[in-house]
Amino acid sequence: MKWCRFQSESGPTVAYGIIEGGAVTEVTGTPFGSHARTATTHPASSVKLLVPVIPPTFYAAGVNYREHVTEWAKARGVEPEFPPQADVGYRANNALIATDEAIVIPKDATDQVQYEGELVVVIGKQCKRVSEAQALDYVFGYTIGNDVSERTWQRGDRTLWRGKNTDTFKPMGPFIVTGLDPDHLRVTIRLNGKEMFSYAVKDAIFGVRQFISRISQYLTLYPGDVLWMGTDGATENMKDGDVVEVEIPSIGVLRNPVRRER
Amino acid sequence: MKWCRFQSESGPTVAYGIIEGGAVTEVTGTPFGSHARTATTHPASSVKLLVPVIPPTFYAAGVNYREHVTEWAKARGVEPEFPPQADVGYRANNALIATDEAIVIPKDATDQVQYEGELVVVIGKQCKRVSEAQALDYVFGYTIGNDVSERTWQRGDRTLWRGKNTDTFKPMGPFIVTGLDPDHLRVTIRLNGKEMFSYAVKDAIFGVRQFISRISQYLTLYPGDVLWMGTDGATENMKDGDVVEVEIPSIGVLRNPVRRER
Repeated sequence: MKWCRFQSESGPTVAYGIIEGGAVTEVTGTPFGSHARTATTHPASSVKLLVPVIPPTFYAAGVNYREHVTEWAKARGVEPEFPPQADVGYRANNALIATDEAIVIPKDATDQVQYEGELVVVIGKQCKRVSEAQALDYVFGYTIGNDVSERTWQRGDRTLWRGKNTDTFKPMGPFIVTGLDPDHLRVTIRLNGKEMFSYAVKDAIFGVRQFISRISQYLTLYPGDVLWMGTDGATENMKDGDVVEVEIPSIGVLRNPVRRER
Repeated sequence: MKWCRFQSESGPTVAYGIIEGGAVTEVTGTPFGSHARTATTHPASSVKLLVPVIPPTFYAAGVNYREHVTEWAKARGVEPEFPPQADVGYRANNALIATDEAIVIPKDATDQVQYEGELVVVIGKQCKRVSEAQALDYVFGYTIGNDVSERTWQRGDRTLWRGKNTDTFKPMGPFIVTGLDPDHLRVTIRLNGKEMFSYAVKDAIFGVRQFISRISQYLTLYPGDVLWMGTDGATENMKDGDVVEVEIPSIGVLRNPVRRER
């Protein structure tokens, strides 16, 4: 099933919807709690897609793919260091934008503002201390994220606050799709229509099951929490006027234009 | 004005309230948005106090007081390193508990589970790119936080995820008080009734105005966002059966019992 969160042309109401055959059926409630289909439908092309979920907690695996770690170390002139265990990090809700919204590079950023296309896991049910074997039972579905990063701030600041969480640096969407097997998903990143990198989600150092199980040993995961799984490969700079796309075929394309503030 | 978020004896409803002379007046809406006093009041002693706000984003200054940095460096056998600029960090909502709720130490934690009593700033109005001179105009009020930390996880993991964000490790409350001057506030930490440390909020390396102004140069702050200001001084281990209190006289006392899982 394909879910979206949207605003219709006719009004300011924000609602969840189910997309079927070019139409969005409006739903009351949220996909993670009690909800019901209404009789209201909209042509899918007429609605404004919003960030598909505002997470209570926004988790990010961070460094989780070997080639990305290696390329990042090469760029810094250091030895690659692979994470010894699935220690999760955080991102922040202020930075979330929907598909088609602009990534805005601040005036004082360097030219090293880069994409990181990745799978996003959306938690569906509260859980604590689940095994790896049970972990996927607590997933509602999957969406796509672009973990935009200003590399000089990422390297130089004491934390990732502005390097990763500057407003507009976290595009997420367009849809949440249920019933997928994360081991069969592939992420492709395009800049201005040119394929930059493509990788299999299952090549992660730590997979979805491992992160959910390990996090849940100490932390309760809640419906609507998101877990961004990290990206693979080298990443390139984005500049004013570019368009960046992250595609996972069974989910969709997360597409964002890039603007630099003047 | 003194605000709380509470649940009354009579039902499961969660509401905000204003505390005056031993009574809680129920309010519709939230203190950060449109709201109105109702005719319903409860004796203050009869309500269950909840975490006073669930923040959209949960900011934490982290290392922000000289003596705390010095003591922490001493414990690790390294030179103290003071932050060169106000780079903010994050904590996570799963870990929040209210006053009187128990801090639960997981079975596999070491005995190095320590308190950090601190001032919490609650944002009242959306802001971006505010000056230090304007910064306090965007503050709704102040509450109290205890940034409980498992020191071996804090030092050893790649991130602070379980060292700082294990469930129950973020007591916050009991009230949000408006109209205070942060430069005149003092934080006192007690363990089992014994004063462990007391410090002036204004001795911070970076103050409330500096953090709000700097964060807002890149990030939009939203109503209900919280900023924990960091603690000062050495901190000590807490064990099963202890009671930890953080007091800021014009706000109140945040009091939590400590339990270790068996």
